[in-house]
Amino acid sequence: MTATTGHTHPTAPDAAGPAGPIGYSLPLSPSGQASMLTPPPWHFSGEILMVDYRVDPDAARRFLPPGLDAGADPGAAAAVFATWQWCSEDGAELADPAVCRFSEFLILLGCAFEGRPMARCPFAWVDQPVPMVRGWVQGMPKQFGAIHQTRPVTVGRAGSRLAPGGRFDGALSVHGRLTAEASVTVERRSERPPALHDVPLAHSLVLPRWVPSDAPPRPRLVASEVSGVEFSPVWSGPGRLALSGRPGTDLALLAPVEVGAGHVFAYGETLHGGRLLRG
Amino acid sequence: MTATTGHTHPTAPDAAGPAGPIGYSLPLSPSGQASMLTPPPWHFSGEILMVDYRVDPDAARRFLPPGLDAGADPGAAAAVFATWQWCSEDGAELADPAVCRFSEFLILLGCAFEGRPMARCPFAWVDQPVPMVRGWVQGMPKQFGAIHQTRPVTVGRAGSRLAPGGRFDGALSVHGRLTAEASVTVERRSERPPALHDVPLAHSLVLPRWVPSDAPPRPRLVASEVSGVEFSPVWSGPGRLALSGRPGTDLALLAPVEVGAGHVFAYGETLHGGRLLRG
Amino acid sequence: MTATTGHTHPTAPDAAGPAGPIGYSLPLSPSGQASMLTPPPWHFSGEILMVDYRVDPDAARRFLPPGLDAGADPGAAAAVFATWQWCSEDGAELADPAVCRFSEFLILLGCAFEGRPMARCPFAWVDQPVPMVRGWVQGMPKQFGAIHQTRPVTVGRAGSRLAPGGRFDGALSVHGRLTAEASVTVERRSERPPALHDVPLAHSLVLPRWVPSDAPPRPRLVASEVSGVEFSPVWSGPGRLALSGRPGTDLALLAPVEVGAGHVFAYGETLHGGRLLRG
Amino acid sequence: MTATTGHTHPTAPDAAGPAGPIGYSLPLSPSGQASMLTPPPWHFSGEILMVDYRVDPDAARRFLPPGLDAGADPGAAAAVFATWQWCSEDGAELADPAVCRFSEFLILLGCAFEGRPMARCPFAWVDQPVPMVRGWVQGMPKQFGAIHQTRPVTVGRAGSRLAPGGRFDGALSVHGRLTAEASVTVERRSERPPALHDVPLAHSLVLPRWVPSDAPPRPRLVASEVSGVEFSPVWSGPGRLALSGRPGTDLALLAPVEVGAGHVFAYGETLHGGRLLRG
Repeated sequence: MTATTGHTHPTAPDAAGPAGPIGYSLPLSPSGQASMLTPPPWHFSGEILMVDYRVDPDAARRFLPPGLDAGADPGAAAAVFATWQWCSEDGAELADPAVCRFSEFLILLGCAFEGRPMARCPFAWVDQPVPMVRGWVQGMPKQFGAIHQTRPVTVGRAGSRLAPGGRFDGALSVHGRLTAEASVTVERRSERPPALHDVPLAHSLVLPRWVPSDAPPRPRLVASEVSGVEFSPVWSGPGRLALSGRPGTDLALLAPVEVGAGHVFAYGETLHGGRLLRG
Repeated sequence: MTATTGHTHPTAPDAAGPAGPIGYSLPLSPSGQASMLTPPPWHFSGEILMVDYRVDPDAARRFLPPGLDAGADPGAAAAVFATWQWCSEDGAELADPAVCRFSEFLILLGCAFEGRPMARCPFAWVDQPVPMVRGWVQGMPKQFGAIHQTRPVTVGRAGSRLAPGGRFDGALSVHGRLTAEASVTVERRSERPPALHDVPLAHSLVLPRWVPSDAPPRPRLVASEVSGVEFSPVWSGPGRLALSGRPGTDLALLAPVEVGAGHVFAYGETLHGGRLLRG
Repeated sequence: MTATTGHTHPTAPDAAGPAGPIGYSLPLSPSGQASMLTPPPWHFSGEILMVDYRVDPDAARRFLPPGLDAGADPGAAAAVFATWQWCSEDGAELADPAVCRFSEFLILLGCAFEGRPMARCPFAWVDQPVPMVRGWVQGMPKQFGAIHQTRPVTVGRAGSRLAPGGRFDGALSVHGRLTAEASVTVERRSERPPALHDVPLAHSLVLPRWVPSDAPPRPRLVASEVSGVEFSPVWSGPGRLALSGRPGTDLALLAPVEVGAGHVFAYGETLHGGRLLRG
Repeated sequence: MTATTGHTHPTAPDAAGPAGPIGYSLPLSPSGQASMLTPPPWHFSGEILMVDYRVDPDAARRFLPPGLDAGADPGAAAAVFATWQWCSEDGAELADPAVCRFSEFLILLGCAFEGRPMARCPFAWVDQPVPMVRGWVQGMPKQFGAIHQTRPVTVGRAGSRLAPGGRFDGALSVHGRLTAEASVTVERRSERPPALHDVPLAHSLVLPRWVPSDAPPRPRLVASEVSGVEFSPVWSGPGRLALSGRPGTDLALLAPVEVGAGHVFAYGETLHGGRLLRG
């Protein structure tokens, strides 16, 4: 076989000193090349299916950590399906199609930090391990699920065109249980990007306590730093959404009390790291 | 949850009589709605990454059943990655994104039937069960694999635009072993569709013998009947291809002796059934 | 890497003649070694979790093809989870752990053929492609699902011993929807094997029609021919079972009206082919 | 469907204070029940296939962090396949077979901390997300792979008995590439457990840097604290092992220079947390 890749990212000897193995993340190794994660920046190009909805504002508040408040529109929420292509700074992963693509479903809650509109992601699922662990590095609570999404077609009859009347669907299953379904029937081009997809994300950076004698971990509130944000034209129309969490998890608290418009668009960004909002 | 689908295809009481369960395929059931497969026609809209290549003409001939000959260009072959969306006549599956999408890798050999150019598919892999079984119904030797393919992007930096210099890759793994890798760097718009993607497929219809006292099965040569063929503009450029079959299977016989141009395009068709070429 | 396997099964030139590719099944190839399936016999060793239950007898009758009747105990049914290891006559697959194991869930209905007790399998799911296609070859309606089953443990605290009070569970998801859950809490050793696991299976051999001008296919009723049946001691106790089919399929017709005992045991057999009951 | 589980673990308000969402791990939520991970202790019962081998001692040393040295037998290594069942303190996950089972492959290097024999795990792969993230919490570099392992059978002909001459195999694929294969042909009962499976593991606790202005993370060396260790009888015999890492990762540095005995056994333990060896 041809040797397609071979990560050649500059080693990131963040971890461990001269006498030991190094790496941006585990696994540490002599050269640092065994690291599961490459260091940021990471580029993302995705196809998004998003449904605006509303949750009980009190429930939403209970998901916000100290430092965030409900902002100007308490109860504003969104459910987002995305199919992503990603790569590191040097683009090496793009030659490895088994590595550079993943799907995602996440929930966003509108909020604010010191008066600045932001979004909080209380739940997220992806279908590939690298993005999952990368989520934990940035404080984004990514779990694992099976995520499927229909896409606009340009030829043939097996799908909708991205044109008035086109319908697009997403579905999430977790551990073999249907957990989220969304649908958008697009009607028109929107003049601006969906509100909750156009604000910074505020995450809680925390590693669970492992050494019992350590002090309890204190989550640090961080904002994701992105550049190069690009939106395709956004098509919008009536949305549909159903959530069905496993009993005993708190997902049911964020069930829709009202479902609004849906949106279909492409989105690109580069993610650079986190900015500390509250330590 | 919303009840998204519910196949409402006209029952196809082909199998079993008035006193028994019915269905286009197994499982047979009282209403016929349990059938794993819906009857044709089936619509397909796909995104294709294809590499023309050449095999040893004698090896190719040994894969051709009686009735087919090597045609005008013995040794012509192609490796095709495709990501499909599909649906039945009524389109019901499009509301179920976990059902209506699959990926495929296949090999095509140029051949002819009574002087008419056709293509023979000696090997194919898909990643969803319904297309796999549907392959066997039509005589197409679909097996199961993990198939990944990069796609053109329109925003962001995680992928190539469909424009000169854009590179697109595909990879197939079978039972956890890397089996095929292909890559295309597009340079120009082609004036016509790739030759082997624009001719009918000739398959061998046969069900393995199960009752020992039955006569040995005799494969019937059938041509797939399609309508509504649609090609997007085709982008072409240098291709790369590597095949690596498990020892003892005959895939190695079809390894590239020369690799030609690659092509990236979208393709749609409707598949109606088979036409008997030789019984 | 070491070359673990390399099927060396005698070629089975059932299909195609001297001038063409051969094989027990598709894909046909020059040597016959590309065949997805090896010819029978196939050996199976499995670990079974089974729950006896009862369905509406009229519903069960509607799933029986001509030639089968409801037998001595109309409405008798069972739900069976199994984790299998399998191999061909020469055992070659056992060296390839990614190939020789699969899980299965199936439903059995008690029935009779000319007064002889048999079982009919109206629905079955497996999680590997070779067993799925092999099901269709023998007339067994195997579809694809995600199947999980807890197993007895002999050390540690993460599971039950196979001893009074031990609890074992199975779960099936199809296309990301939870479809079956079963549980057995074993209390005692049974004196004989579970009734529905100790009778021949009667399947309907049929390939869906592909050439429209062909006559409608007529299913042939066949009994599976097995030898070398071996049961471990059978542990039994109260069972639990829930089925939840996708709307519009007929699985709901076979929902439990009463749930009986469950059983946990190991089972081995060799499957040789089919015997025609009714052509 | 029956509601099988519903984690009822005592909430672990380690993270976040009275005004915010809580949880042992992300996702934080009002009740803490959304946490992907339950807090330790975690119980494990597993079936192990292990091959002792030797690596270049200098290569092994380069994988050891400050505080660990090569110990009494530099170059001693092992490759371990395991199929696990696991549960939290209350055992709730055992009722959910899609959650409580996973497979693992890992490499162990012999080493010592202040003269005490230990094992270092430079590479590990699992096939379920909860164990993967739990690995990172304890400093164990778990990545994601497809892992398969044959098991002893007690009935039928599809596998070996756990008796002299029995052969058992394991295989790991990562991103669709065959990465490790191991095989053991057991000959005799061993008198003691395999050396590298009977010493504590020393991991490096570290979270990759996300906020650029933070100081570089300093890995802390921790030993896993386990209780309730239980071994079944251990069957041993000649082992085989092949490793094939993707170019550019450092796995190739740990390729076998000599392969020794293999072992097949069951193993149970309870994992409680980490003990700081060097901060």
